[in-house]
Amino acid sequence: MRISALAAAADLPIATVKFYLREGLLHPGAATSATQASYDETHVRRLRLIRALTGTVGLSVQQARTILGLIDDPGDDLYATLGRAVSALPPTTDEASDDDPDPYPRARAALEALGQVYDPHFAAVAQLEAALAATEAAGMPLSDDRLLEYGRRLREIAAFDLERMPQEPHAAVEYTVLGTALYEPVILALRRLAHQDVAARRTLGRR
Amino acid sequence: MRISALAAAADLPIATVKFYLREGLLHPGAATSATQASYDETHVRRLRLIRALTGTVGLSVQQARTILGLIDDPGDDLYATLGRAVSALPPTTDEASDDDPDPYPRARAALEALGQVYDPHFAAVAQLEAALAATEAAGMPLSDDRLLEYGRRLREIAAFDLERMPQEPHAAVEYTVLGTALYEPVILALRRLAHQDVAARRTLGRR
Repeated sequence: MRISALAAAADLPIATVKFYLREGLLHPGAATSATQASYDETHVRRLRLIRALTGTVGLSVQQARTILGLIDDPGDDLYATLGRAVSALPPTTDEASDDDPDPYPRARAALEALGQVYDPHFAAVAQLEAALAATEAAGMPLSDDRLLEYGRRLREIAAFDLERMPQEPHAAVEYTVLGTALYEPVILALRRLAHQDVAARRTLGRR
Repeated sequence: MRISALAAAADLPIATVKFYLREGLLHPGAATSATQASYDETHVRRLRLIRALTGTVGLSVQQARTILGLIDDPGDDLYATLGRAVSALPPTTDEASDDDPDPYPRARAALEALGQVYDPHFAAVAQLEAALAATEAAGMPLSDDRLLEYGRRLREIAAFDLERMPQEPHAAVEYTVLGTALYEPVILALRRLAHQDVAARRTLGRR
């Protein structure tokens, strides 16, 4: 298809498609003349991915480029690549100073209590530290039993997610990035709706 | 204590404390002279709550006022008040037109599949609809088995949360608002860390 049909298929302005081509986020089409190229289904899929990253997920073009680079070239150590890809997603966290021997004490203690891997280079550790500090500042620190309950249920969700991860490395990185970012808002909405449902049944039960 | 000590106790500038007093978010102290008042622990706690709402949760002063009003005056129908309080939290969603007979088809179908209450006036329904639409646009729609798995685990978390809700109505509204907003970032960080832990154990197991 020509670029106009590609833009229509991806529901994007032609100028945006040309911008992604110039920036190297979208691979070139097959040249059909000096000024024209032909695009196929791989381009439509790629544009859908770029749109998800820069639109829904809210990444800058530069951040999207980092993640697309990891999808395109996952390398030999898939585990490390998945960690880097997820660490490139929002929220951004400050990197700890190398001089600080224990930069994330709350997150470290929580992961120890859960019996989970603690790797201070993984951005979600800094994210957990900030989240736990905020609960303390508000006077609602996360109790140990709540940590264990949340940790257990989220580990069940994580095991489900990982079981369904594609084997093929490029697809695995894409699945991990989109599955992390796109399902997070679903999870938060479902928790709020579950609260409502549990509360409604309680209230009805009282009548 | 005097206003300077109150500001110090709440770790806020005096000007900010005076602003919250003027705006009516913070209750007046006991007048000790024509120009001075005395504040107590209730003022410190209230400032901590205001700071959590306007800082960590990211509400505007107007949005915080709405939520503080519901905490101060929960009324007779606690279930409805809790729903209104949670609906006042981010993310903000557009209200559906009353003319649209089925404004949230994806969320409705999901809640039907989960056997949960469907109330289109509750903001989390619009939030779920938008989240599900985004997964479809990105080519990663939420499968039925994933919906059931997530829904089940989040309902377990929600039941835990509700069991611990204080009976006293003012405290119940405050617990619900802060427990929703402050624990959400904890939940997202824990899911990412659980992914990492499950993946690490898999990778190690292969060696």
